[in-house]
Amino acid sequence: MTYCVALKIDAGLVMLADTRTNAGVDNISTYRKSFTWEIPGERAICLMTAGNLSITQGILTRLCEAIKRAEAGESVETILNATSMYRVAQIVGDLMRQMQDEHRVPLLNQGVGADATVMVSGQRAGGAHRIYMVYSPGNFIEATPDTPFFQIGEAKYGKPILDRVITPQSPMNEALKAVFLSMDATLKSNVSVDLPLDLVVIRTGELAISVNRRVQATDPDWVAISTGWADALRASFGTMPDVAI
Amino acid sequence: MTYCVALKIDAGLVMLADTRTNAGVDNISTYRKSFTWEIPGERAICLMTAGNLSITQGILTRLCEAIKRAEAGESVETILNATSMYRVAQIVGDLMRQMQDEHRVPLLNQGVGADATVMVSGQRAGGAHRIYMVYSPGNFIEATPDTPFFQIGEAKYGKPILDRVITPQSPMNEALKAVFLSMDATLKSNVSVDLPLDLVVIRTGELAISVNRRVQATDPDWVAISTGWADALRASFGTMPDVAI
Repeated sequence: MTYCVALKIDAGLVMLADTRTNAGVDNISTYRKSFTWEIPGERAICLMTAGNLSITQGILTRLCEAIKRAEAGESVETILNATSMYRVAQIVGDLMRQMQDEHRVPLLNQGVGADATVMVSGQRAGGAHRIYMVYSPGNFIEATPDTPFFQIGEAKYGKPILDRVITPQSPMNEALKAVFLSMDATLKSNVSVDLPLDLVVIRTGELAISVNRRVQATDPDWVAISTGWADALRASFGTMPDVAI
Repeated sequence: MTYCVALKIDAGLVMLADTRTNAGVDNISTYRKSFTWEIPGERAICLMTAGNLSITQGILTRLCEAIKRAEAGESVETILNATSMYRVAQIVGDLMRQMQDEHRVPLLNQGVGADATVMVSGQRAGGAHRIYMVYSPGNFIEATPDTPFFQIGEAKYGKPILDRVITPQSPMNEALKAVFLSMDATLKSNVSVDLPLDLVVIRTGELAISVNRRVQATDPDWVAISTGWADALRASFGTMPDVAI
């Protein structure tokens, strides 16, 4: 399984991903699911992936190959020269469709799921900061002020805290706490989601990867929030009024 | 959808069910999903149902028919004369199998799901208080001290609070608060689960339905806990330490 969450607040984009993959419960591995690119001052992009790992790795490999060919002087459109974040999402969607066309039927014939999802977050010079969610068919949707976050993978456990506290006006420190708490709730209830985590922040207008930090289980910020929240929930529970029966 | 939760603590059994059913999002109804029987001083039983409503109503109708025939003097085993709670669960499981045998294939041929689940809670004189979860094939499992609760329907949103606070030693007032908060989290995130609720309590050794209370949206206990928890979560969130970036 996987849990990745991306928030779009006025102050910027906040992305948090776990690193656990599994093929059945007896085959567990650690893979990075969060990938960043930047041309400082021009654009910053973060992709987070969930679903069939061969599909998502194929998409990433083809994205990187195109970038290398463009760097070598070839005239090829890439996520680093696309004219808008919308075009970046289309490029990812097109590659998703290619991968699905090649592998979906053989995978399904073997009883293996081919579904995959990619969250595309970023900003380019002259455009707004945006988050897109690209689905298996290659179509995508964009986060809006009414629903300023996307989740992929095991989304339910970590959704209530986001529903309760996140709005586009949330300050950056609250957004960071919220994604940590959202991940904490997911880790507590689903063993197929696990540390270490990858935290990426792209501040609005910075046009660079502002933060790219790996969070280990012993990370003092993680421990402080995880244990602090457990204590606060127990204390809050104690203050709830009794139900009359 | 549905959300029903049953806790087995040393002090007794606590069951909470919502009442919303839907066939698609444009066909929503209110149906009781929690049903009780008692022979005061001898036994008390609560059934909660989820899944295909025609399957679960069929099970209930056949359970009640058998009880009427036994009351009329016929020699027939029913949930009210079965020699153990285990036998009660078997009777429910057998009826589940009958209903599935009759309706599953025609339902699936129409593209309609036939899955259903029944939680069987209760105590009879001379036995322990028990909770069983009966699945579509008619098989069932029992709640144990390691996992002293079962959930059916939309289980994920309401699980974290139970994981954090419920043990077999939890006192009754904490169990009541926990099922209310578990339901509150589910209502907040899934529109296909809704009030009114049915709360049933069977205190250990009482051999009677101790509480059978319908909880409306305006119920003062519900409002106090739902709004109190929202306030407490926001206050706790404010006290969390910042993440260094």
